[in-house]
Amino acid sequence: MNAYESLLQRSKEIALYNSAASVLSWDQETYMPAKAGAYRAEQLGQFAGLTHRLGTSAEVGDWIKACEDQLPSCSDEEEMALRAANVREWRRDYDRATKLPGRLVEELARTTSLARETWAQARSKSDFSSFAPWLEKILGLVREQADAWGYTTCAYDALLEGYEPGARAADLAPVFADLQKQLTPLLPRLQEITGAVDPARLDGNYSIPAQQALNRQVAEAMGFDFGAGRIDTTVHPFCTEMGPKDCRLTTRYNEKDFTSSLFGVMHEAGHGLYTQGLVPEQFGTPMGTYLSLGIHESQSRLWENQVGRSLSFWQQWYPRVQKQFLDLAALSLEEFWIIVNRVKSTHIRVEADEATYNLHIILRFEIEQRLVSGELAVADLPRAWNTRFEELFQIPVPDDARGCLQDTHWALGLIGYFPTYTLGTLNAAQLFHAATQQVPGLESDLKGGNYGRLLTWLQEKIHRHGRRYSPSELIERATGESTKATYFMDYLKAKYRI
Amino acid sequence: MNAYESLLQRSKEIALYNSAASVLSWDQETYMPAKAGAYRAEQLGQFAGLTHRLGTSAEVGDWIKACEDQLPSCSDEEEMALRAANVREWRRDYDRATKLPGRLVEELARTTSLARETWAQARSKSDFSSFAPWLEKILGLVREQADAWGYTTCAYDALLEGYEPGARAADLAPVFADLQKQLTPLLPRLQEITGAVDPARLDGNYSIPAQQALNRQVAEAMGFDFGAGRIDTTVHPFCTEMGPKDCRLTTRYNEKDFTSSLFGVMHEAGHGLYTQGLVPEQFGTPMGTYLSLGIHESQSRLWENQVGRSLSFWQQWYPRVQKQFLDLAALSLEEFWIIVNRVKSTHIRVEADEATYNLHIILRFEIEQRLVSGELAVADLPRAWNTRFEELFQIPVPDDARGCLQDTHWALGLIGYFPTYTLGTLNAAQLFHAATQQVPGLESDLKGGNYGRLLTWLQEKIHRHGRRYSPSELIERATGESTKATYFMDYLKAKYRI
Repeated sequence: MNAYESLLQRSKEIALYNSAASVLSWDQETYMPAKAGAYRAEQLGQFAGLTHRLGTSAEVGDWIKACEDQLPSCSDEEEMALRAANVREWRRDYDRATKLPGRLVEELARTTSLARETWAQARSKSDFSSFAPWLEKILGLVREQADAWGYTTCAYDALLEGYEPGARAADLAPVFADLQKQLTPLLPRLQEITGAVDPARLDGNYSIPAQQALNRQVAEAMGFDFGAGRIDTTVHPFCTEMGPKDCRLTTRYNEKDFTSSLFGVMHEAGHGLYTQGLVPEQFGTPMGTYLSLGIHESQSRLWENQVGRSLSFWQQWYPRVQKQFLDLAALSLEEFWIIVNRVKSTHIRVEADEATYNLHIILRFEIEQRLVSGELAVADLPRAWNTRFEELFQIPVPDDARGCLQDTHWALGLIGYFPTYTLGTLNAAQLFHAATQQVPGLESDLKGGNYGRLLTWLQEKIHRHGRRYSPSELIERATGESTKATYFMDYLKAKYRI
Repeated sequence: MNAYESLLQRSKEIALYNSAASVLSWDQETYMPAKAGAYRAEQLGQFAGLTHRLGTSAEVGDWIKACEDQLPSCSDEEEMALRAANVREWRRDYDRATKLPGRLVEELARTTSLARETWAQARSKSDFSSFAPWLEKILGLVREQADAWGYTTCAYDALLEGYEPGARAADLAPVFADLQKQLTPLLPRLQEITGAVDPARLDGNYSIPAQQALNRQVAEAMGFDFGAGRIDTTVHPFCTEMGPKDCRLTTRYNEKDFTSSLFGVMHEAGHGLYTQGLVPEQFGTPMGTYLSLGIHESQSRLWENQVGRSLSFWQQWYPRVQKQFLDLAALSLEEFWIIVNRVKSTHIRVEADEATYNLHIILRFEIEQRLVSGELAVADLPRAWNTRFEELFQIPVPDDARGCLQDTHWALGLIGYFPTYTLGTLNAAQLFHAATQQVPGLESDLKGGNYGRLLTWLQEKIHRHGRRYSPSELIERATGESTKATYFMDYLKAKYRI
């Protein structure tokens, strides 16, 4: 076996254990009996240790080096390009995994595990001071991480790199600033337009089995393959991959409002279509793996927002839904569509609409950079958060539970993660625009409820490439330009006809 | 770490991977999407290989040898006894796993995998000749297995040992012969008594959610802990363990007859109570592992038959069930009880009642011994089967699909497995009798629907011992004598009042 084949085999072996661990995690969230939690944690810990050892052993480094020195050749040019890309990505993973000292990895795991509990209590009591020392400690550890990984401009970049390869704070900042500049003046008008219909008029009695049937119909129409996937119920919705033909979505149900589950399923099915669009033969190698959180999020948001919240989508689906749910009889299509597109400032990110959501991200992106650099002291976080929040949203923050304590990310050590949400939003709009330009007649397809050519375009441009290109290269190849705020802003304006 | 601690750690590591594989297998039967099967098989194969390597590596042999030479001592006498028993069982497992040449293990896996398909087709066409060469090959391979493992009297014993440690054909034969001698003359009377009510009177419309609720109530009343277990739906019911606090049962539903699912759940919950009664701290070591198939089956059958098919059980439950299922209004308790205890000869083992079931086993036990010894040629199997079947049941065998092709066991290489079913039946009756003798007032407990003291007795006498004693020792310690046909026969006579 040559060095490349050894890497291929090791990579697939690691993926096999990781995907088995995904089954265990999925089961933990869906069906596992309560008392089984402690042992399940032990099982998952064992798998994490096993795959870490398999991925970071010295021979892996030797194999990568050997491939970098001379890639085992083959006559197929495309295959050689794939091999080179695999080796590049294996190097990236290997370096990121081996550059951290074992002590730091363990301390981060231990600290974030305890910090998560403290954070949950702190949030429930809105008591920032009890969480502050933990955040301080986590910031110290992630700074150590960043130093171990290395960076050119700022430590934050080394963290961001873990979620969005190639992204740099200095490149994102002007895009986000432009977005904020264009978005802020538009918000009063969007709030006015969408405030015209009382959202309580959507309240009804929507049986869970009927919601399940609708969710499945919509996911099927999108092209999600239920022969290679399914939908289950969990407290927090997610999408997970357990093998080349096994992708599972989850959702939760609100019997008073079917749209929360339906849009959740469209979102997760968007992730699922990306997963199902990866090349099965490449499963377990970088070329068969999703590229970045931002690209993943572009797929989920495109289906949830550009498709699912469009008027043309509901022109197709609302008559069917009205037949199913009699409580909708008195609500017109246009009224319904306004309610599910309501724009309104809220303190809580996860409750935000697609427009104001981005201001929540901009706030976090600014603040976490300052926390990592040390420019902002942890003790000053609540004040800084509240001041900036009020500038962005024009409403005051009533308490830290609805302010800087609301998200779990920082307690888990996930710093540099937030910007991928807005990258996803911008890329969703940009990709959707490019698809309508490149696929003749796409808009009338979508009006007719035919999503096949949109999916094919996404598969061709995004899914099938795995980690072959960087996220920014991929977006440029697909849309002709780098990620911009323009397409998202154009999308909003067109949608609300302003 | 001393040799004993190394073995303990290795044993728990293997159990961790095995229990993860159990989650994957359970998922495969319950929720996995259809197209995921090929990759799931790859995952399970990888786990089997991993645990085999971990269990059979040379250092394991060295550690066992070191413990046999001198067991690391501790002051607690009970702990020393447990350690000694663990070492004895590790030796047993190690020898059985390492004595087989790798070539034979692989050939058996390959052959039985193909034979299973051929068998399924042969059965559907009732074409023995197409399966015969495969059975011939399997017999050759299991004889090689037996030779590799070694035996004193006959090769069959080496196979039997894999399912029922310590059991020997020469010891079982007289017990089974006695059973047959007592049972056969009783059957006409049992058929007459239970033939008095037309079983079609039970046919009704039993909704699956109502069946599920009933199954759960009954399993809970038995003492099955749903905080550490659950019930799902599969084509073939089973019970599986995924950790010290995670035991899952499955069942299937017949909307015309709720009793098939209910008795199935009582059977599987009997297995589950055994699993839940193992000592959690010993999980992953022989002392925290079930003892044998026969002992497992004694637990499932005791709950299904001695408890679940008793009149006193239905005196408690039938009024509730009648309230739930209105189709039972015209069927009296006594009539219902007769239907669920109907004795009738059938060609198919898995459809047999608890009495005639044993004749099916006796037939297989006799025939498989003769096949292994070579006394019976494969070509002569159908004739031998049909002749002996008619002697035992007084009905002719119409075709091989309802004759020697009906079971999957031999196609899977499971030879020596069948007798554990009847061992389970006999031990169930013997244990139940011993419990009623040893626990004052137990019968009135059971009449009152209180199963707690029966379960406690089983936990004390059977469950908590894991693999500390051999099956025959365990039964002698619990009941004062070795396994006999008498208690089962007494049970039948008392039940049918003859």
